[in-house]
Amino acid sequence: MTGDQKPEAPDLRAIRAAFKRIRPYAHQTPVLTCTSLNAMVGAELFFKCENLQKVGAFKFRGAANAVFSLPETKAAKGVATHSSGNHAQALALAARLRGIPAHIVMPENSPKVKVAAVRGYGARIVFCPPTQKDREQTLERVVAETGATFIHPYNNLRIIAGQGTCALELIEEIPGLDIVMAPVGGGGLLSGTALCCHYVNPEIQVIAGEPKGADDAFRSIRDGRIYPSENPITIADGLRTCLGSLTFPIIRRYVEKIVTVEEESIVAAMRHIWERMKILVEPSAAVPFAAVLEGTLQVRDKRIGIILSGGNLDLDTLPWLRR
Amino acid sequence: MTGDQKPEAPDLRAIRAAFKRIRPYAHQTPVLTCTSLNAMVGAELFFKCENLQKVGAFKFRGAANAVFSLPETKAAKGVATHSSGNHAQALALAARLRGIPAHIVMPENSPKVKVAAVRGYGARIVFCPPTQKDREQTLERVVAETGATFIHPYNNLRIIAGQGTCALELIEEIPGLDIVMAPVGGGGLLSGTALCCHYVNPEIQVIAGEPKGADDAFRSIRDGRIYPSENPITIADGLRTCLGSLTFPIIRRYVEKIVTVEEESIVAAMRHIWERMKILVEPSAAVPFAAVLEGTLQVRDKRIGIILSGGNLDLDTLPWLRR
Repeated sequence: MTGDQKPEAPDLRAIRAAFKRIRPYAHQTPVLTCTSLNAMVGAELFFKCENLQKVGAFKFRGAANAVFSLPETKAAKGVATHSSGNHAQALALAARLRGIPAHIVMPENSPKVKVAAVRGYGARIVFCPPTQKDREQTLERVVAETGATFIHPYNNLRIIAGQGTCALELIEEIPGLDIVMAPVGGGGLLSGTALCCHYVNPEIQVIAGEPKGADDAFRSIRDGRIYPSENPITIADGLRTCLGSLTFPIIRRYVEKIVTVEEESIVAAMRHIWERMKILVEPSAAVPFAAVLEGTLQVRDKRIGIILSGGNLDLDTLPWLRR
Repeated sequence: MTGDQKPEAPDLRAIRAAFKRIRPYAHQTPVLTCTSLNAMVGAELFFKCENLQKVGAFKFRGAANAVFSLPETKAAKGVATHSSGNHAQALALAARLRGIPAHIVMPENSPKVKVAAVRGYGARIVFCPPTQKDREQTLERVVAETGATFIHPYNNLRIIAGQGTCALELIEEIPGLDIVMAPVGGGGLLSGTALCCHYVNPEIQVIAGEPKGADDAFRSIRDGRIYPSENPITIADGLRTCLGSLTFPIIRRYVEKIVTVEEESIVAAMRHIWERMKILVEPSAAVPFAAVLEGTLQVRDKRIGIILSGGNLDLDTLPWLRR
């Protein structure tokens, strides 16, 4: 995939600056290996465990970078976003660590457990009717009232640079990777990963996994235009968003390919990771390994870094126990 | 707790030798921290993740040390044990890595998944009727027939030294620990841990967790004699064994105290670890944290190392989903 012109994107200096900036707050997550999963797919896998990151997801990297990049006077007015997922928790924690307010717009039908998690990090929650338009309007109003800075979950250069620090740690710890894989939803993690690999070692192929039931990114790159995510049907709830104007051109230029996977592969991949590696990953995080498991990629004897994006899920309803 | 005379026990040199010996085969497991669990108990917790060890449990350390300590001619005849748990898998893998036979005596009613796991590591399985006497007799016969060396799961000095390497890594990575905690079943892990702490920093208090429903170790230390484990009733299936003649005197001399915990605390501790730390631990591994959660220990503002002993369990029957 190559775009026609160089996209607006963080450079390596921005990613390294993000790494330094978030270092006091974020975990440098471990890279785990598993002999039996290697044997299963005939490759050498290196799992970068962002499920073990603060708030249980890579999202904290970008949020912390965005929050700690703000100049003092701007920061004092706080940050705001609309999200019911990991970004909301990540932004809330980053704001608390800087000692500034976080205003989180959430649909009024959000699961209680998610509301409680965001509130637990000390954020102010503003409820809105559960439509995209209401979310955006409510956010605008909050920003107008408070002067807070809107931090988009992925379409933001500081967020992209922050997410890029994950691949930076991975490729500096594990030399000689042939491939680095990440899931793709809005593309914040994927674009940061692709940029970082391109700068540090352009020989590394960056490959994304995406659920077939939410394949808007795959189609967007294929057709050269951003498709919205319409009625996505997938267990991978973190990957139901569409690409953004900033993430799309980066992915188009620097990502080798996007592999779409079946739902049953996602559940199988998730369970293999739980059983063999003894770590919790949420369905979204299992999508790249699901792509390897499906066997369409050429992976034999390759050294593959896989970013496990997060581990947040409801332990009362595991997908293999649903009736 | 102090015994009258110095027990027969590995010295620090033996533990360091074990560390060097198993280093090429065992994972140096990560030590994870979790802000929210710290806040929950008012202490600083450092979790040594033996659930992320090879075969998913600390048992691999002792088994690898025992197997790789054998002189060439003895090793060639293989190793043998009776176990249906983590030790069986650990010994099978260690033997395979050395390229020698492993003979594992298992009760004929062992869960298929456990039989498959041991077989998966290339061991020879010898079934026997499900009584202790049959297990021992069958093992004797196997040893007589093959010349294999019997490797007891815990009552073996090489095993104890091997398990001690876990605490060695922990206290060398995390300075200034006040307490180190481990679960107690047969006492291999606990005695190795206690010895190592005693040698490296005798100021560290070693405290064990044990299920109330299987409190034979607690009673054994209290009364100064080894009680058998009779009809243990606990979800912590790794802790149903009784102390051995080698582990008992070490624990008696070097362990500060054994705290017994309720079953519901074990389940709660396990779920907290899963939810907050995003790692799988088996019930046995959650027992020390359950002791902290119950609140009878003085832990405020202390630095506490907790050994998470393993992560092997059936993902189809999680304790909080049982009806």
